[in-house]
Amino acid sequence: MKYPDTKIVALCGGVGGAKLALGLNNALDQKNLSIITNTGDDFLYLGFYICPDIDTVIYTLAGVNNSETGWGREDETWKTLDVLKELGADTWFQLGDKDLALHLFRSKEKRKGELLTTITRRLTNKFGLKTHVLPMSNHPVQTFLETEDGEISFQDYFVRQKCMPKVSNILFKSKKPVATDAVKRALSDKSLDGIIFCPSNPFLSIDPMLSIKKIRTLIKNQKRPRVAISPIVGHDSVKGPTSKLMNEMGIEVSSVSIAEHYQGLIDGIIIDETDEEQAGKIEEIGIKVKLSKIIVETREEKIRLAEESLEFIQEIAS
Amino acid sequence: MKYPDTKIVALCGGVGGAKLALGLNNALDQKNLSIITNTGDDFLYLGFYICPDIDTVIYTLAGVNNSETGWGREDETWKTLDVLKELGADTWFQLGDKDLALHLFRSKEKRKGELLTTITRRLTNKFGLKTHVLPMSNHPVQTFLETEDGEISFQDYFVRQKCMPKVSNILFKSKKPVATDAVKRALSDKSLDGIIFCPSNPFLSIDPMLSIKKIRTLIKNQKRPRVAISPIVGHDSVKGPTSKLMNEMGIEVSSVSIAEHYQGLIDGIIIDETDEEQAGKIEEIGIKVKLSKIIVETREEKIRLAEESLEFIQEIAS
Repeated sequence: MKYPDTKIVALCGGVGGAKLALGLNNALDQKNLSIITNTGDDFLYLGFYICPDIDTVIYTLAGVNNSETGWGREDETWKTLDVLKELGADTWFQLGDKDLALHLFRSKEKRKGELLTTITRRLTNKFGLKTHVLPMSNHPVQTFLETEDGEISFQDYFVRQKCMPKVSNILFKSKKPVATDAVKRALSDKSLDGIIFCPSNPFLSIDPMLSIKKIRTLIKNQKRPRVAISPIVGHDSVKGPTSKLMNEMGIEVSSVSIAEHYQGLIDGIIIDETDEEQAGKIEEIGIKVKLSKIIVETREEKIRLAEESLEFIQEIAS
Repeated sequence: MKYPDTKIVALCGGVGGAKLALGLNNALDQKNLSIITNTGDDFLYLGFYICPDIDTVIYTLAGVNNSETGWGREDETWKTLDVLKELGADTWFQLGDKDLALHLFRSKEKRKGELLTTITRRLTNKFGLKTHVLPMSNHPVQTFLETEDGEISFQDYFVRQKCMPKVSNILFKSKKPVATDAVKRALSDKSLDGIIFCPSNPFLSIDPMLSIKKIRTLIKNQKRPRVAISPIVGHDSVKGPTSKLMNEMGIEVSSVSIAEHYQGLIDGIIIDETDEEQAGKIEEIGIKVKLSKIIVETREEKIRLAEESLEFIQEIAS
């Protein structure tokens, strides 16, 4: 690892975010990395308490993820799902046999009254990781999308309807939108070197975390450098529905928009080297810009982008 | 099928009982066969509502059972269980990947408020059967065993402790020990030709059903012939812990004891041809005896024993 003494909090959600998380996990000493993870996508399915973003981070960091889909496990089988289909169950969500065990384990622990934070720590340890994977909240904060056909849940939008509905607004609903103690501790840590916003979908993966007042405030008041990696190259998203969503919500698809969205919360942003012409506009609103290749596919590229983020934090701090 | 117009109710539980159920299912028109099934072994495990005896009957009749173990499905895999073990979950109960789907489906339907009878009918249909597999009750009736170490549940005794504890008594606990409407209808059916007690464990598989007053009364007052097939050959049980249990409870291990146990509820019993010397004692208490080979392994043998049971019913009726 190139940065054994650097302590980082990353905000992460989705497959795009997990790519940088993997890079950070290899550039840093694992015990110095806390990854606050979106739980706005969590849902109940066939009695299971499913946390897609937490699972994606754990599987990715543990190296057991399906590298083609980005979600789920490698060498997965679908025996249970096949029989469920035969039985006529509504199987819109892909439950692999190995993946199922994790949902089963978490659901069992939840029923026992364990906190999501505790369960996640146990799972992370079982997968051989020292990284602190921290759910943003121990209480449900649920992402809903306002569409032409009314309000729908994230999983309905993302998985069942494959992001087809036109979205006019995004809502985060919670009876108890409070950050966990572990999240508050991580963000208040005096020895922290910086905060990194992974190249996740800002609206669907990062905003649920920022919707929790305490998290937003702790990031806003943070003295150490905070940098984001843009999920946009040119006028399109690197992955997923970010650009479609931005278009529908009347936001120009560009890294400038991403920087504006995070204004007040970040000190710097890494944008793609092909978008150099956007740098000026971003610097005008007081956010530093670093150029890089932000499309990362190989393990080496992910580590390289993570190291550049850490380098950027050092540059801003000095 | 040899008996297309004969209508039968069978009482069944466990792997031994399912063998005769398979025979009956092939000797009769499926729609004329109702199998009242023990649910005293039902339990909750990892959030699943599991009905081992119903599953064994369905899998066996559908021809998808594991013919070596007698329980579970053929060509089964154990991916979920393997990962659960890695995660440190208590995996004392064998959950195959295909089998899991059935537990998942039933649990989902139960949470929706469906009756066990309705769910079982749907499952039976999905497996291509016209047979009426009828849970004895829609409400929990749970089998407990009094042992030297206190009272333990059936699954704890049977699976976890492999029938090792010494049993002094068997209890059936229920807040609402009522027969289902479907069971009452089947046992009151005017066109019924007879009732068959499958060669199940009388104490652990049949007694839970007889512990429900209405079931016992309807069988007791039944005018059509009622025959049992003994699960004992010589002084040992054909399968499972029946003889161990009888010894511990101070009951002589013999078909005579089985006949005595069912006294007042059966008109005839099929015992093994090698036990001919026991026939006299059984006939003394007013129960007719038919001799046969009661150890059945092949499909043909199971059908043969079923046909002999039906023949016996005809003999008694005439």
